[in-house]
Amino acid sequence: MAVLQNRLELSSEGALIVLQAATAKAQEIGVPQCIAIVDRGGHLLAFLRMDGAKVLSQWSATQKAVTAASSAKPSGELAEPLAAGLVAATQGRFTNLRGGLPIMVSGCLVGAIGVGSGTAEQDLIVAQAGIDALLACLA
Amino acid sequence: MAVLQNRLELSSEGALIVLQAATAKAQEIGVPQCIAIVDRGGHLLAFLRMDGAKVLSQWSATQKAVTAASSAKPSGELAEPLAAGLVAATQGRFTNLRGGLPIMVSGCLVGAIGVGSGTAEQDLIVAQAGIDALLACLA
Amino acid sequence: MAVLQNRLELSSEGALIVLQAATAKAQEIGVPQCIAIVDRGGHLLAFLRMDGAKVLSQWSATQKAVTAASSAKPSGELAEPLAAGLVAATQGRFTNLRGGLPIMVSGCLVGAIGVGSGTAEQDLIVAQAGIDALLACLA
Amino acid sequence: MAVLQNRLELSSEGALIVLQAATAKAQEIGVPQCIAIVDRGGHLLAFLRMDGAKVLSQWSATQKAVTAASSAKPSGELAEPLAAGLVAATQGRFTNLRGGLPIMVSGCLVGAIGVGSGTAEQDLIVAQAGIDALLACLA
Repeated sequence: MAVLQNRLELSSEGALIVLQAATAKAQEIGVPQCIAIVDRGGHLLAFLRMDGAKVLSQWSATQKAVTAASSAKPSGELAEPLAAGLVAATQGRFTNLRGGLPIMVSGCLVGAIGVGSGTAEQDLIVAQAGIDALLACLA
Repeated sequence: MAVLQNRLELSSEGALIVLQAATAKAQEIGVPQCIAIVDRGGHLLAFLRMDGAKVLSQWSATQKAVTAASSAKPSGELAEPLAAGLVAATQGRFTNLRGGLPIMVSGCLVGAIGVGSGTAEQDLIVAQAGIDALLACLA
Repeated sequence: MAVLQNRLELSSEGALIVLQAATAKAQEIGVPQCIAIVDRGGHLLAFLRMDGAKVLSQWSATQKAVTAASSAKPSGELAEPLAAGLVAATQGRFTNLRGGLPIMVSGCLVGAIGVGSGTAEQDLIVAQAGIDALLACLA
Repeated sequence: MAVLQNRLELSSEGALIVLQAATAKAQEIGVPQCIAIVDRGGHLLAFLRMDGAKVLSQWSATQKAVTAASSAKPSGELAEPLAAGLVAATQGRFTNLRGGLPIMVSGCLVGAIGVGSGTAEQDLIVAQAGIDALLACLA
């Protein structure tokens, strides 16, 4: 019987690697972004709002990360009316906006990243670049 | 390396010019309005609720201004379900209602105006009149 | 007549310099911290929660920064019952906790830093180290 | 039997007179202020945040006005623990901060003004100047 479990978690050093790589990709594609990295429980680890990114994206980027951490899946993939129901039942903690990705290492969730201020496609490119940099560190 | 950036901001005197011109236009077209002027970060600078304007428009007018400031674009131009997702993920700070306009000077965002209580067309006429008065001061 | 005003603002690059120096100081004194950097209006620019920092400090650190930005003074210096009154009237945006410092450049507010998870003295040492690094860049 | 009652209310024109006189007094004493004028029900009629006023005072100034309108008395005069109880029971709508004054005409409440960003004494001087200007119009 296992009353305790062992979990891999992103460290703050790991979060900064994700943040810096995501920021570099956003600069490369010329889209200022809000970038949020959260832990497995959805609590904020690291954040950057780049010059020119939308002020309101500080909230949506974070909720994308929270949502991806919660489900260990990309945000924005649920059908209606399930998505709207979850938004309401979680008081807006869940979002069905695209731009949040879980950070998976060897099949285990270790945190998540949410990006907002660009199009969904731009947000996802930036989020993926952050994850790729982390995985490259572990390779 | 630029650790600081220089930004043009609407002053409270500028905000009052926008407010007064918008109010005059609303009187001219005979539509009482709630008129909100915010700074670049979406914080309230100046506000007027004209006699007969809807009480609830004090909130919607302000959120229109906040939304226009955040994106440096008119509010109300996003498609669904993106718009509804942003409303939820920002806890209602974002609105997809029409009637908010960014205040741009020489291509720079300096604040925003949101107008509510009329139709979207009436709201936009009033908002634009406020901006025009500011630009006339600078000409 | 000044309808516009020119303001110095912290850039995201500047915010990262503050964040990194504050983090380095926290490591040096062996106290994991939550560190939040906000702009002049109190909107989040950069954030890091170091390994071992208190989860709840993600909120208190941020509100310390918001409070210091609003008043251009260190947080935590008001007497009661004024402080408690402001906490309530601002719905918790204001905090009277120590650990928030305004970031002043040539006498102008350009943003603020808030640090939480240590003692007030530890929080302030870390916050000041962040500011010192920014000022060194500008010297 | 009176199933209806007749009430004097501040008009938006009256609110602007109060706002402008209060702003002029704040300039005269050299203290930038947030100034909020509300109707008898505590809904915002007019607002100005002067350059240099604290961002967070946009909320406290408004709640001072709301509180003064509700009780037809200056805000900040209740003893503890009654004041704290009202703050909690009204979810922060009531504030016991000083700086809110009811606007009384011939003994009737017609609205209220709340001022914040200075000391309580400065806030009250500015609020009273706004009311005096309105009463002078009616003399």
